[in-house]
Amino acid sequence: MKARILLRHLEIPYESVVLDIFEGEATEAEHLARNPSGEVPTLELESGEFVAQSAAVLLYLAEGTQYLPDDPVDRAHVHQWLFFEQNGIEPGIATSRFWKWRGRDKEKPEAWADRIARAEDELDVLEAWLSEHDFLAAGRYTVADIANYAYTHVAHEVLDMSGRPAITAWIARVESQPGFVNDLAPFP
Amino acid sequence: MKARILLRHLEIPYESVVLDIFEGEATEAEHLARNPSGEVPTLELESGEFVAQSAAVLLYLAEGTQYLPDDPVDRAHVHQWLFFEQNGIEPGIATSRFWKWRGRDKEKPEAWADRIARAEDELDVLEAWLSEHDFLAAGRYTVADIANYAYTHVAHEVLDMSGRPAITAWIARVESQPGFVNDLAPFP
Repeated sequence: MKARILLRHLEIPYESVVLDIFEGEATEAEHLARNPSGEVPTLELESGEFVAQSAAVLLYLAEGTQYLPDDPVDRAHVHQWLFFEQNGIEPGIATSRFWKWRGRDKEKPEAWADRIARAEDELDVLEAWLSEHDFLAAGRYTVADIANYAYTHVAHEVLDMSGRPAITAWIARVESQPGFVNDLAPFP
Repeated sequence: MKARILLRHLEIPYESVVLDIFEGEATEAEHLARNPSGEVPTLELESGEFVAQSAAVLLYLAEGTQYLPDDPVDRAHVHQWLFFEQNGIEPGIATSRFWKWRGRDKEKPEAWADRIARAEDELDVLEAWLSEHDFLAAGRYTVADIANYAYTHVAHEVLDMSGRPAITAWIARVESQPGFVNDLAPFP
């Protein structure tokens, strides 16, 4: 989703190849040659080279565009929120959703509670920041917002988001950006 | 540790201010103003601005140096392994060590096992990659190695590393880099 949102903003034509992670297609040898972690997404360049990790894909595509500031400190703050997402939001929310789909929340309630607690802590950080800022970094919409939006906007599937009005308002702000498209339809 | 290793490589004078995370010093209001996640490290610049998240600090300091390639694809691969570390190694190993120090491995054995399992999976990825590559990205020593070194070189404190010869050799390779210093002594 993160890569697709940015590709649409930048109006870069791309082809989507969907792997079924539930069927283990991402951990087969063919895909491990593209992405040593056996994960999606993986960006294949026209050169045949690959870039893995969603946030690394965002940084690669955003270079030289309005979605990644040139100022070194602004850029550092974009990086800061990208790493925050990968260190907190993704392990907390993405994996909890995956567990719920697979029924592991019932199988391993203590580990599930641990993951949800982590997600709550990270959402507390986001809520506090967004109570005082319209966007995560550099005072404007950047790849930091795109990255954190992806799992945060579906966090309500695993926990209660009703007490987080600043996050709710920011989700609407992200979705109202010019050129924002979040769907799986092919492009162009 | 990550920031200190790079500061030493670059011979940048710095002052270390230690916060006691066990006493909650990182989550006090004064530090939250520096780092909204209430974590260490946080880099304070001469301008008075702050950069949080260890990997964002590394990227900020490494810009324009040999530790961060200029080539866009090489740089994307450095980013890829930095995000890998924050998404897998840190949540798996760093938090497991922290839990062990606090006795939570005994209090919450199922959640502990979940964290260790995650760490093992991530170390499998590193071991496979380092079996075929001397360094993580761009064919040379970069901030990607520094970031992944930090928790990986102490992973033996929480799990068995004896079956991971490629990681063991890479740890020695990192520590033998010119200017590599890993200590808490003040500098200069």
